[in-house]
Amino acid sequence: MRPHHDGSALYVPEQAPALGDTVSVFVRVPADDDVRTVHVRTTPDGEPKFAEAVLDRRTGDELWYRAEVPVRNPVSRYRFLLSGRGTRRWLDAAGVHDHDVPDAGDFRLVAYDPPPAWVRDAVVYQIFPDRFARSAAADTRTVPDWAIGCDWDTPVVGYGPQTPRQFYGGDLDGITERLDHLDRLGVNTVYLTPVFPARSNHRYDAASFDHVDPLLGGDAALARLAAAVHARGWRLIGDITSNHTGDAHEWFTSARDGSAAERELYYFDAAGDYESWNGVRSLPKLNWGSAELRRRFATADDSLLRRWLRPPYGLDGWRVDVANMTGRRGRDAYTHEVAALLRRTVAETRPDALVVGEHGHDHTGDLDADGWQGTMNYVGFTDPVWSWLKHGDEPVPNFLGTPGGVVRRSAPEVLATMDVFRSLVSWRAYTHSWQLLSSHDSARIRTVVGDAARHEVAAGLLATMPGTPMVFAGDEWGLTGGNGEGSRTPMPWHRPQDVDQGTFAAYRSLLALRRDEPALRHGGLRRVYADADTLVFLRESPAGSVLVLARRAAGRPVRLVGLPAATNRYGGAPDLRPDATGALVLPADGPTFQVWRLG
Amino acid sequence: MRPHHDGSALYVPEQAPALGDTVSVFVRVPADDDVRTVHVRTTPDGEPKFAEAVLDRRTGDELWYRAEVPVRNPVSRYRFLLSGRGTRRWLDAAGVHDHDVPDAGDFRLVAYDPPPAWVRDAVVYQIFPDRFARSAAADTRTVPDWAIGCDWDTPVVGYGPQTPRQFYGGDLDGITERLDHLDRLGVNTVYLTPVFPARSNHRYDAASFDHVDPLLGGDAALARLAAAVHARGWRLIGDITSNHTGDAHEWFTSARDGSAAERELYYFDAAGDYESWNGVRSLPKLNWGSAELRRRFATADDSLLRRWLRPPYGLDGWRVDVANMTGRRGRDAYTHEVAALLRRTVAETRPDALVVGEHGHDHTGDLDADGWQGTMNYVGFTDPVWSWLKHGDEPVPNFLGTPGGVVRRSAPEVLATMDVFRSLVSWRAYTHSWQLLSSHDSARIRTVVGDAARHEVAAGLLATMPGTPMVFAGDEWGLTGGNGEGSRTPMPWHRPQDVDQGTFAAYRSLLALRRDEPALRHGGLRRVYADADTLVFLRESPAGSVLVLARRAAGRPVRLVGLPAATNRYGGAPDLRPDATGALVLPADGPTFQVWRLG
Repeated sequence: MRPHHDGSALYVPEQAPALGDTVSVFVRVPADDDVRTVHVRTTPDGEPKFAEAVLDRRTGDELWYRAEVPVRNPVSRYRFLLSGRGTRRWLDAAGVHDHDVPDAGDFRLVAYDPPPAWVRDAVVYQIFPDRFARSAAADTRTVPDWAIGCDWDTPVVGYGPQTPRQFYGGDLDGITERLDHLDRLGVNTVYLTPVFPARSNHRYDAASFDHVDPLLGGDAALARLAAAVHARGWRLIGDITSNHTGDAHEWFTSARDGSAAERELYYFDAAGDYESWNGVRSLPKLNWGSAELRRRFATADDSLLRRWLRPPYGLDGWRVDVANMTGRRGRDAYTHEVAALLRRTVAETRPDALVVGEHGHDHTGDLDADGWQGTMNYVGFTDPVWSWLKHGDEPVPNFLGTPGGVVRRSAPEVLATMDVFRSLVSWRAYTHSWQLLSSHDSARIRTVVGDAARHEVAAGLLATMPGTPMVFAGDEWGLTGGNGEGSRTPMPWHRPQDVDQGTFAAYRSLLALRRDEPALRHGGLRRVYADADTLVFLRESPAGSVLVLARRAAGRPVRLVGLPAATNRYGGAPDLRPDATGALVLPADGPTFQVWRLG
Repeated sequence: MRPHHDGSALYVPEQAPALGDTVSVFVRVPADDDVRTVHVRTTPDGEPKFAEAVLDRRTGDELWYRAEVPVRNPVSRYRFLLSGRGTRRWLDAAGVHDHDVPDAGDFRLVAYDPPPAWVRDAVVYQIFPDRFARSAAADTRTVPDWAIGCDWDTPVVGYGPQTPRQFYGGDLDGITERLDHLDRLGVNTVYLTPVFPARSNHRYDAASFDHVDPLLGGDAALARLAAAVHARGWRLIGDITSNHTGDAHEWFTSARDGSAAERELYYFDAAGDYESWNGVRSLPKLNWGSAELRRRFATADDSLLRRWLRPPYGLDGWRVDVANMTGRRGRDAYTHEVAALLRRTVAETRPDALVVGEHGHDHTGDLDADGWQGTMNYVGFTDPVWSWLKHGDEPVPNFLGTPGGVVRRSAPEVLATMDVFRSLVSWRAYTHSWQLLSSHDSARIRTVVGDAARHEVAAGLLATMPGTPMVFAGDEWGLTGGNGEGSRTPMPWHRPQDVDQGTFAAYRSLLALRRDEPALRHGGLRRVYADADTLVFLRESPAGSVLVLARRAAGRPVRLVGLPAATNRYGGAPDLRPDATGALVLPADGPTFQVWRLG
């Protein structure tokens, strides 16, 4: 056990500080560690200040120190100096350091408006509407000109010209009819990829933001789905493209035809050529230097951002597509400004709505800026989990398109990655980000890990680590898919033989456990052991603590000293009782995923 | 030897890229390393892109790969992916990593206007005017009401009410008369701490920005000094307080008297109280939200920033005091905006003038933003060097006021700190920052290290590491001082017994060596060996390479394989010839500082 602090309630009782507050923070130190004094270092208005922490209490073999942190700036940073007889170490969000470190890893108190309270307990279920379920009405619709009509059992093509054109005809009423499935699984937030009209099955090339695609059932179907979701006490999140529209979008066609009002919404050059997302001509890039764009997109009373948050749709927030590129082009650097504008606009319209920015690589510079309240944490969760649990030597492409794809790595390497990305954002931004094992933009976790046993370990990490779990529809059935497009698998409702009910049961139990254990939703994260194949951590909260063991392979038993007896809550291993030496001995078999409740 | 890249000319031939350029960059890889392909990863407009590097050439046992980096954004980041048979590693500015890393450590190409060319070869000499030298005219001046007149030999008091009031009466003509000393030492840039009228010996509490303190000889004395400095082909840098003025400043007295025009320049509250630097009432804080402040300070044609850059003064730039707090207060976050405004204004007035921002802690977030062209690198140079070379167990306070002061650390710990701070800024910002062993705000290096032998090692690092060396006047004579105020020692011109001529000779030789060896001024930095007491590195450039050995204590001989014969250039050790096994064997005695020219 090492000195520890994180942003959870055991250490930071005040979770939503206001500018001008002084917040008490706590740090725990093993009593036998070489720590004689603890100081907190803050940097109010950009200058370092030190204040000595006071010994608050002793519990068991630990000393708890208390320090006061002034919330002087919207993001107020702090870290601890641990001075001993022969050592002087820093404790920051990346861990304990024997040398001087930059401020980037400091803990952070954020005084910007907090995300809505419901998000703390959210479990998100991602639905790609074309592939989830068809209502009866779907049969009455005509396949559009751009599409290749597919039977529900047609294999998905992951690469090629037909990839965006395969049209399976899933619709919103199909989702509404299947909400019992989500209820059995145990999620409480539905996130829909785009529902606006488009010329592709993914609909990220919106042709309008003013109505729901009739192929999905139109505006009324969205209102029905929203009503059904809300009737269950759940939330519904939409998906908006702030970086680009489709080239069939009414704004863009006007712009291309020379309309000055729309022309400034995009990046046209003198020759009439235009900037587009990664050079894909069908996705013209929006120019956030345009006041008119800001008005239409956000600030106008009837803006698209506001409109869909209101009845009868009442979306509970937006996932913002390609947030990482939004507002960035050459010299233009509007990203943080736009993120803050969108967040403020959303909050004005619906104070309880969420704004999550998509980010496929290093999101850390774009959070804690009063904009995106969280991100899709591919780099700090998905990629490391994949690296640890990946099977075989076959390369699996990751979302980032890293050459060679995902590489198998040991738990310590994977933890190093998780730690550094976590350390570069506030605890709030970390825990309000979506942790995911797969998405419509990645291979499926089952394909990455290769079997149900390691899939269970992955699902276990999803359910027990901090952050908002996001399940990509179909993962809970063990569906497969080798890349982002290939993983957009239609749900095999009528093919029970293609459904892994064991995996479903694991997800269901794990999500139920997360609901039952406040520590899994709101607790801190303290690692207690790692070797190449093994990861052991604690989630601790004022309402109790749990111990988690994840193994990708069998190994040696892990002995933990200083912990109380523990009752198994998941995985079927025996309860733990201290042995003659006072140690808990964790089982050695694997792959396995086990959770115990402490004390 | 490990795979290596940095921002120097061997690896980045184009040192001042423009937006829209594509820049070739090179990475070197030992031929026997597990590297089969090299990719460069860039993030143009915020999205990762990978491109395979091509094998450019083989030299000896090394492969050189070439990759193209588009300068798409003002700061364009890149790093390398090294894929081998069994490994996949990242190479970024912090080194080689076995796990995924954030973008913060990426190499950077900066398309903002480069710093003036002369800075690349600058060696700065810092003068605290009250303590450097008195001209004959000093005897004719009256000690001001706030001051305690001191004889030149009066001991400096480092702590206490008299500390800012001890007045020794050094003046600008005193400096002008002593420039031969600087010439013998080998510096070429004079940096003066403030010269405006004030009510303290340090003059950071300016009472006006409109004229030079008559106690220093007034405007005419500055003009004479500037002329003398420029006549030698040298440069002269001023010191400006952008965070605050003194409470005797004409702006502040007007503001306090109720003048609306001046009131907005500061932070007054309804009760008439005002914000000040760290609560020191005599240093009222400037409010950069004020357009009038921006005008008076910077943009007006006769602004203080411009005026002193023009004849007859012709300052060659400004060191900006408390740059870290400038524009920061609560919600106000004007820092980068102000830095860019000051830099632009300076460049408009004198395209060849420099702007360096003071920063006492983590400066990395404030560089590469088209503002400060460099910083005073306390955290990435001074503190680590002190930690490594510190003598005894007595605490030495550092500039940051870290409780417990400076702790003795091993070379690997110290290098970890240097590496991480270096990795968070561009090579350009790193090499244009001032590396210093002491300043008017810190203890003196001689007091920190305790003896001439380790002082020589420190001076050796100052002269041979990347960055602009800054010598605090008196360090070259081995003067002592236990803290910032206590180190403002009058120069003992008339007390030769208090001057360490050996230390002067070492500085002189080291700075001459730096002048003679382009690699020491412009070369890359590649570390080849470190143990607790030993540090060995290469400075390499197209014009030749040098090998540096620094030891704080005697140890075991270091054997280096793969290097050619080398000629000793400093320190007196023998030339190096490969032994029977092909190794160069570096001497084991210490403390020592040795430099050889390779090949």
